[in-house]
Amino acid sequence: MNRKQIFYTVGQIILIEAALLFLPLFVALLYRENALPFLVAIGIALVAGLLLVLGCRGKNRVIYAREGFLIVTLAWLSLSLIGALPFVFGKEIPRFTDAFFETVSGFTTTGASILENVESLSHGMLFWRSFTHWIGGMGVLVLMMAIIGGSDRSIHIIRAEMPGPIVGKLVPRVKDTAKILYLIYLAMTVVEIIFLLAGGMNLFESAVHAFGTAGTGGFGVRADSMASYSPYLQWVIAIFMLLFGINFNLYYLILIRKFKAVFKSGELWTYVAIVVFSVAVITVDILPRYEAFGEALRQASFQVSSIMTTTGFSSTDFNLWPALSKNILLVLMFIGGCAGSTAGGLKVSRVVILFKMIRAELRRLLHPRSVNSVKFEGRTVDPGTRTSVGTYFALYMLLFSGVFLFISLWDPFDFETNFSAVAACFNNVGPGFGGVGPLSSYSAYSGISKVVLSFAMLFGRLEIWPLLLTLSPSVWAKK
Amino acid sequence: MNRKQIFYTVGQIILIEAALLFLPLFVALLYRENALPFLVAIGIALVAGLLLVLGCRGKNRVIYAREGFLIVTLAWLSLSLIGALPFVFGKEIPRFTDAFFETVSGFTTTGASILENVESLSHGMLFWRSFTHWIGGMGVLVLMMAIIGGSDRSIHIIRAEMPGPIVGKLVPRVKDTAKILYLIYLAMTVVEIIFLLAGGMNLFESAVHAFGTAGTGGFGVRADSMASYSPYLQWVIAIFMLLFGINFNLYYLILIRKFKAVFKSGELWTYVAIVVFSVAVITVDILPRYEAFGEALRQASFQVSSIMTTTGFSSTDFNLWPALSKNILLVLMFIGGCAGSTAGGLKVSRVVILFKMIRAELRRLLHPRSVNSVKFEGRTVDPGTRTSVGTYFALYMLLFSGVFLFISLWDPFDFETNFSAVAACFNNVGPGFGGVGPLSSYSAYSGISKVVLSFAMLFGRLEIWPLLLTLSPSVWAKK
Repeated sequence: MNRKQIFYTVGQIILIEAALLFLPLFVALLYRENALPFLVAIGIALVAGLLLVLGCRGKNRVIYAREGFLIVTLAWLSLSLIGALPFVFGKEIPRFTDAFFETVSGFTTTGASILENVESLSHGMLFWRSFTHWIGGMGVLVLMMAIIGGSDRSIHIIRAEMPGPIVGKLVPRVKDTAKILYLIYLAMTVVEIIFLLAGGMNLFESAVHAFGTAGTGGFGVRADSMASYSPYLQWVIAIFMLLFGINFNLYYLILIRKFKAVFKSGELWTYVAIVVFSVAVITVDILPRYEAFGEALRQASFQVSSIMTTTGFSSTDFNLWPALSKNILLVLMFIGGCAGSTAGGLKVSRVVILFKMIRAELRRLLHPRSVNSVKFEGRTVDPGTRTSVGTYFALYMLLFSGVFLFISLWDPFDFETNFSAVAACFNNVGPGFGGVGPLSSYSAYSGISKVVLSFAMLFGRLEIWPLLLTLSPSVWAKK
Repeated sequence: MNRKQIFYTVGQIILIEAALLFLPLFVALLYRENALPFLVAIGIALVAGLLLVLGCRGKNRVIYAREGFLIVTLAWLSLSLIGALPFVFGKEIPRFTDAFFETVSGFTTTGASILENVESLSHGMLFWRSFTHWIGGMGVLVLMMAIIGGSDRSIHIIRAEMPGPIVGKLVPRVKDTAKILYLIYLAMTVVEIIFLLAGGMNLFESAVHAFGTAGTGGFGVRADSMASYSPYLQWVIAIFMLLFGINFNLYYLILIRKFKAVFKSGELWTYVAIVVFSVAVITVDILPRYEAFGEALRQASFQVSSIMTTTGFSSTDFNLWPALSKNILLVLMFIGGCAGSTAGGLKVSRVVILFKMIRAELRRLLHPRSVNSVKFEGRTVDPGTRTSVGTYFALYMLLFSGVFLFISLWDPFDFETNFSAVAACFNNVGPGFGGVGPLSSYSAYSGISKVVLSFAMLFGRLEIWPLLLTLSPSVWAKK
């Protein structure tokens, strides 16, 4: 195993974080707030990053799948540990476990918060909190590839960081693929900011909400999330959340004018169909609670868009909705957005493949000797990927049960609260139901549960394998 | 498709049910109760059965997998529809949907009840209710095979009715396999009755509880289930529940003195390990609530044994236990007992195979070019079975979510109640938590939810595929 290259790359990532921390620093200076916490954090990041980069230089830059997984895991852990420092130094989130939870929640684009009063935070901290969504959304290693490139082998890193069952390159060079993805990401974020500004939101809030939307994160600046904003602004956010939940490969295909391929995407249509169906059912279900049909439709659309893309903004306290609507949202949490988007959850493509596997199995039971292939996006899904998808699903549910039991041990809250808390963290959604509803926070959980839930978010964002591999001792063996 | 043979076999099953209904008839006569409901039901079963058998006689007795699935589904539906009649005729459960729920719950060995006061039922009805557990536990088609045999192809029927990912024959002839299974089943039931009699339980209650244990059903005769019985009787039931949750193949191996093979069973050891671990954790968790360690241990053992084997007897109101203990029980509901036993749930063997698939996938990710086989019970699990197990798990969760959403539509009860109700029905457990806890009943659910939950029980008992295939129109096509 190429340990040197692993730590070298992690060092690079920490240096990139140091650079990114200058943005909240400027915001703090702009609003004449205490900039020291950011300065100290930048200092620590620079020292740690330089030590790793200089100490682990080496000629052997070859990496394989194993190194890719380790790099991604260690990079994300380091990012979160250092990213938590400003909150602690600024005493705005004094306890480190709380700050770590908040930062992991930011980078993993979960949006679950331990803050009981988000409005008391300074602008610099609010900006940094939401900016972590933007960084984590498309992936920090993808960002690194876009900036400084990497060897041909670095597709292993992209694969380990990008969500979805099948990850490929858009263009032959990894660096170019990463650049294209980030440019689309940046452009869409800017367009959203413009739309928000047009609705009368100020620049600071527009930027923060665009970060939260783009990364499908969900951190906002108000205690009631998006509820007190105008219907126009809610519609803008609802639509952009949906857009960021779509596979970015499709945007690239649009750019190179391959509209037919976009039109044929099974994942896209399934995604749209699930959204439309859920919005329709929920609108009818909540209609008696709202004054007009238009309002019920907007509330249903916003929440479906927010939960399915695992963003977690809310335009109303959906915790008070009838059971059917709440339970639909719960199921959407698990489905999540499209592969290759910034959304969390199982991903629509996996759900589609699982459905097709069920159909193939039905055929196999009826005609035991027939050959049953599963097709997805025009290509046959090879048996290896089929087993992978099935195995991933089992692992997903297993880890879910484990975390659920573990936090019940330390925090014996009611079933709805604990179950939805784990679902909301693991799927990178943010708010759940009951005690962790959209108007509540995760502050009631014990320190140990917060750490475990933080890891649940990382497991969800990195799709389990990288973290699990890092935790198994055999991976670290020399040979 | 051989429709004639399908209906012919279903007719045979109905005739067997007519014969079995004589037992509760005798019980009713013995206690000088109204025997008329049973007589009328027997009459209807005889007419229906004879019409089918005489009308569908044919020379072509060949059946394939497809026919096997259809026979099992239709047989179980007919059994339940006719089995519900005595309750309705006797006006002891006047509404047919309620009686259907109760009967399906009996045959599928779920043990979920809509009765608010079970103690008001007559002896004949109580006997029939519990006897359906015993019939459904080992399978009524297996019983038919044991009595009248079948063609060489009838292994398709056994496969469709017996739970577990891999079903084979113990001995070359299907009839002999079925006979051996039923003889072991009968012998163990008799032994349990003797143990219960020795503890001072009367013959009627001993028989009823032995039926409930053997089938891992859970219908009793008292409102507090097993709570008011002596510790000795509770231990007897706890141990026998565990015994009936073990693969019956292992008992056969003991009978032919192949002890080594029993000792090597991975499924058995995993089953034992899960039970021991769960009992240990729950005992510690509930210790403060009970006077002595011995009592806590007994309560923990009884509930773990009852829930893991999906029986559903209770010796205390575990709905009042702390969150951790309740949530462990919830996870056990999904794991269930061993394949080839009378227990429900996913089955330990599937969980073990899923675990091994995860390990194989981990290895594959680290060494993409290596060959990773999955071994179970000393044999390599072929890729087809691996995909099947993964697909089954996905289908399981999918159906679970569907039923959960559907009943939320009609009965917007709290999350814990609806979630655990579906879990308890689908896994054939019986009692859940919240509004469907061990001291409550399913009577609060609407008629439509009761029908859907009844089908959830059938889906769980028959392991989804047979019922799903029967519901798809293409199966019924002539070709």
